[in-house]
Amino acid sequence: MDKLKLKNLYSDFRPDIELIEKELEKSLESDSPILREASMHLLHAGGKRIRPVFVLLSAKFGNFDLSLVAKAAVALELIHMASLVHDDVIDDSDMRRGMPTVKAQWNNKVAMYTGDFILARSLQYISSIEDEGLHQALADTMIEIVKGEFIQIEDQFNLDQGIRDYFRRIKRKTALLIASSCEMGAIAAGAEQKVVWRLKRFGYFVGMSFQIVDDILDFTATEKELGKPAGSDLTNGNITLPILYLKDDQVAGPLIIKALNGSISDNEMKTLLQYIRSSDSLKKAKKISDLYLQKALLEVENLPEIPAKNHLKQIALFIGKRKF
Amino acid sequence: MDKLKLKNLYSDFRPDIELIEKELEKSLESDSPILREASMHLLHAGGKRIRPVFVLLSAKFGNFDLSLVAKAAVALELIHMASLVHDDVIDDSDMRRGMPTVKAQWNNKVAMYTGDFILARSLQYISSIEDEGLHQALADTMIEIVKGEFIQIEDQFNLDQGIRDYFRRIKRKTALLIASSCEMGAIAAGAEQKVVWRLKRFGYFVGMSFQIVDDILDFTATEKELGKPAGSDLTNGNITLPILYLKDDQVAGPLIIKALNGSISDNEMKTLLQYIRSSDSLKKAKKISDLYLQKALLEVENLPEIPAKNHLKQIALFIGKRKF
Repeated sequence: MDKLKLKNLYSDFRPDIELIEKELEKSLESDSPILREASMHLLHAGGKRIRPVFVLLSAKFGNFDLSLVAKAAVALELIHMASLVHDDVIDDSDMRRGMPTVKAQWNNKVAMYTGDFILARSLQYISSIEDEGLHQALADTMIEIVKGEFIQIEDQFNLDQGIRDYFRRIKRKTALLIASSCEMGAIAAGAEQKVVWRLKRFGYFVGMSFQIVDDILDFTATEKELGKPAGSDLTNGNITLPILYLKDDQVAGPLIIKALNGSISDNEMKTLLQYIRSSDSLKKAKKISDLYLQKALLEVENLPEIPAKNHLKQIALFIGKRKF
Repeated sequence: MDKLKLKNLYSDFRPDIELIEKELEKSLESDSPILREASMHLLHAGGKRIRPVFVLLSAKFGNFDLSLVAKAAVALELIHMASLVHDDVIDDSDMRRGMPTVKAQWNNKVAMYTGDFILARSLQYISSIEDEGLHQALADTMIEIVKGEFIQIEDQFNLDQGIRDYFRRIKRKTALLIASSCEMGAIAAGAEQKVVWRLKRFGYFVGMSFQIVDDILDFTATEKELGKPAGSDLTNGNITLPILYLKDDQVAGPLIIKALNGSISDNEMKTLLQYIRSSDSLKKAKKISDLYLQKALLEVENLPEIPAKNHLKQIALFIGKRKF
């Protein structure tokens, strides 16, 4: 299983990851029963923890101090989790990672405040790291992420958009926070400015590649693998790269419109998914993802020769090959 | 009008307030049309700006640097605004300050992300002030505020609660952020630690007094003054101090239950409001508010003799006497 393979990649720094996992658990403790349950539900729903891993590995390029690095790693993962809870409200998602979402199990209000709580907790962690530049950079990233959420509202269900609109969205949805993870790890360890920038660019390219693959998997993976029905992005109005390649296609086009306005039958959806899978739209999307991956690997090549360099490379390559 | 009176109180530092107002306006600029409109809507809906005023006045007890103080003032007002937008989602409020709420004019999703955006903007302002203690204190306050929001969910529509539950809620809903405003202003100006603590306690007591008065006004002010129907707190399930005094009353008790389960008629609501107004519950609540005010004034008495001291006193006294 791919998840296990990722675990193997992590094996060299498993103790660090476990420490971060424990700290994450601790960070979400609270007196409120609803809040505690909702946060724990979210935490135990899993996730690849790629942001903490990028924080950890990037910090190796400076003076690695695990307690400081763990704070940054927890903060970044918490920001990611908070954005997931709020996104589930906006996407009206009932399932994520094969489990009911917070908004489905409780309601939108609980989901909103759980996100607020997790975000505030993240700020507690980040504010314990003394570095003004780091605080400023993270606040800037958060602004861009939220702006991205408005762009998503504006673009949702709208077929009158181009590939640039898609890139604009995935940059804010995914790439910026992964770039920040690399940047924060390096800053927290006091790495050289040149290395900080390189790691940030690496994270950005990896993030773009990662999200494109994610959007492809929404069509190719099984419901069991995804934890939600295949094609969910489309029925939720999220127009991804393969759809942009196919929207003017004579067969797929009309079915895409039906999927977006909610009038598609189960059989038509099956037909559409099969059509997408056998079309070249997925290959074209994968090619773009690979281009970003190559850019990421080029950044890695120019990093100082330490073991973490190879780990970053392996994880980037894994992201390019993952099946779900 | 009371609002004008408050303006008179502000007259000595009007240029500073105007600068903060302009900075607030600037802080909410953005490319996204929905986001810009929703934020501006909120900004122009008014508000007393008491948090910025407390930041300003508290900063006078140190080395006053307007540009730094303005940043803290804007950050605090933005946190307050963000919590208002999110609270409107939870309260299902359609009106605030006589205008439709963001969630009513757009929808819950827009309200949620507008709150997120305003909060992220606030972090940008606060992170530009170099003071680790200040960041940590603000993050701690934010945690408590969000915890308060969960307590509010848990206590909503629940008559099986006591006065301590009410105090626990209003502390987190109002008093902590006003206390933080005083604290941040003093910290940003590098005031003596003893003075920082005194101002923080002052803010806390003023905040408690302020919220109790607010909760009384929900029963005594007119719909025009409130910008929403009188008794809205009760029908929204927010059990305030006067209600806690009356919940076992033979006349009011059954009507309160009806108001909470949504089965009260317009006539019965009128009767209940009149009964509350003529009962001693409001006087008892006012007495508690006055006790907090006295504690606040005691703190002011022990502050250094500078003009801001008298301003703080006047504003506290105004809060005790305000009619809406």
